Amino acid sequence: MEQMIKTRFTERFGIPHPVMLAPMDKVAGGRLAAAVSHAGGLGLIGGGYGDAAWLERAFGEIGNAAVGVGFITWSLLRKPELIAQTLVRQPAAFMVSFGDGEEAVAAARDAGVPTIWQIQRLSQAEQALAAEVDVIVVQGQEAGGHGMDRGLTALLPAVRDLAGPEQIILAAGGLADGRGLAASLMLGADGVMLGTRFWASAEAEGSEAAKAALLRATGDGTLRSKVFDIARNAAWPEQFTGRTVANAFARQWQDDLEGLRRNAESERTRYDAAHPDDYETRVLIAGEALDLIDKIESAETIVTDVVREAAGLLRNAGDVLVTA
Amino acid sequence: MEQMIKTRFTERFGIPHPVMLAPMDKVAGGRLAAAVSHAGGLGLIGGGYGDAAWLERAFGEIGNAAVGVGFITWSLLRKPELIAQTLVRQPAAFMVSFGDGEEAVAAARDAGVPTIWQIQRLSQAEQALAAEVDVIVVQGQEAGGHGMDRGLTALLPAVRDLAGPEQIILAAGGLADGRGLAASLMLGADGVMLGTRFWASAEAEGSEAAKAALLRATGDGTLRSKVFDIARNAAWPEQFTGRTVANAFARQWQDDLEGLRRNAESERTRYDAAHPDDYETRVLIAGEALDLIDKIESAETIVTDVVREAAGLLRNAGDVLVTA
Repeated sequence: MEQMIKTRFTERFGIPHPVMLAPMDKVAGGRLAAAVSHAGGLGLIGGGYGDAAWLERAFGEIGNAAVGVGFITWSLLRKPELIAQTLVRQPAAFMVSFGDGEEAVAAARDAGVPTIWQIQRLSQAEQALAAEVDVIVVQGQEAGGHGMDRGLTALLPAVRDLAGPEQIILAAGGLADGRGLAASLMLGADGVMLGTRFWASAEAEGSEAAKAALLRATGDGTLRSKVFDIARNAAWPEQFTGRTVANAFARQWQDDLEGLRRNAESERTRYDAAHPDDYETRVLIAGEALDLIDKIESAETIVTDVVREAAGLLRNAGDVLVTA
Repeated sequence: MEQMIKTRFTERFGIPHPVMLAPMDKVAGGRLAAAVSHAGGLGLIGGGYGDAAWLERAFGEIGNAAVGVGFITWSLLRKPELIAQTLVRQPAAFMVSFGDGEEAVAAARDAGVPTIWQIQRLSQAEQALAAEVDVIVVQGQEAGGHGMDRGLTALLPAVRDLAGPEQIILAAGGLADGRGLAASLMLGADGVMLGTRFWASAEAEGSEAAKAALLRATGDGTLRSKVFDIARNAAWPEQFTGRTVANAFARQWQDDLEGLRRNAESERTRYDAAHPDDYETRVLIAGEALDLIDKIESAETIVTDVVREAAGLLRNAGDVLVTA
């Protein structure tokens, strides 16, 4: 007996499973996004900072799959023409994160495209609610890539209390399996957005060396810092940090950002000169859920296994109850 | 129909509810610990840094309640005589956190006292397992007070995978209600340890002003730092930080710890001279779960409500399942 998990999220998007692909920059290409959607989740292309040519290529890979796209808000707002170029494709969803997404979200709504806003603090949830988005993603600091400092366990139920019972909410950060999905539902979410677990998939863009390095890395061995934003000259607003594997480059500078800034020119040269698969120098973005991931699998296997495990936990959740 | 949640933890300690009081230094006195145990949870006295007179007083307040005691490991090891003084009372449990607890745990086991070791990283879970403790508490960075950087959602299932199915594990950090308890069980825990929620209780030691300040504070408005350890001249090992409400004192120094260290003498004088209830200067320890707490309640009400809410969620968890 195969069981599926039905929530406000699956109903709104007309999909079988409450699992969304995180729109990971340069990792979530059209192939991965399409594979997640074909598996019954919702695939999002990683629009990232906004690169028109990359986006074109990604959309060219999706075939007949219904996929969405997600952007880094503050960067997208510097290239506002990308909003219309994206919306004309009628993606399955339009997601913003990291900054004031009000304008972009309004454009998506006007185009009839479902809107998603990722938040990292309770105060940002108020902004997202004011913008009347269809979905709020609550991202805990456990997540790989950019984020802030709040943990998922306390932030998620607080957002639910603020948003009320009807708002669609997804959980993100540190989640990789059915336990994370089942726990997120208990905390008030309608599903999950998974990043690192799908990074470790066959369809993710990225080298075999990068994926092998992911499997070797551990949750204890990640950190949040601004090291790689400085090294890569990325103009991230001050409040955001990025979770990455703590490699030699990160360890050298994480406690001396001023030193890195003073040596930015030479360190950028050194960083750029490193081999793309030299992950002791180059950034390897990943979340704390690394400990829960031990092989590279297809997106379909990931979606199926996450849902099956969660369904089993939810089905048997009452087993611990005894009547007094 | 009143339902209770039965787990390995409740079985091991012979108690009705899988809810443990965090042994909060100077907050979890005998009165609060006894109230939690009388309510069906497991109350732990906050042995903290180790103050023999305070401990005597706390034990004097417990009446006939079965309560345990928890210590800050590295500080306890500087006053090893406290271990025997505590164990002679045959507490319901002996908990260590923050440092190498092997010796203290062995002494407790030899005295027939159940042992608990709180960990903050997966590598520390290996230490705790090697010491064959009865209970491992997995503390996420969301927690109030001292801790480290890992979030609960990813660390907890990783510890379960490492420890195997029989190890008793409790979750801590950012948990304050039945949602947190139900989610923790889905992630692999056998119960929860609550701090901030019990800090906001009638029986907690601490002034009315402190408790009122807790209710005004928010999860967004907390931070992890070493500011107050420097201000209070507490010799915490480098890897530990403390989560507190981000008051004026913390905001002034959080990004300039070197400056605080250079001005330590005058800043300590200023800190010590502040009124005990001046929480813009004095530390107010609290976790991210603050958003989930809106009144001061009795420990009995807290235990009862947390369990009732969790039982309802677990009972109905299968409602989202549909058979394909």
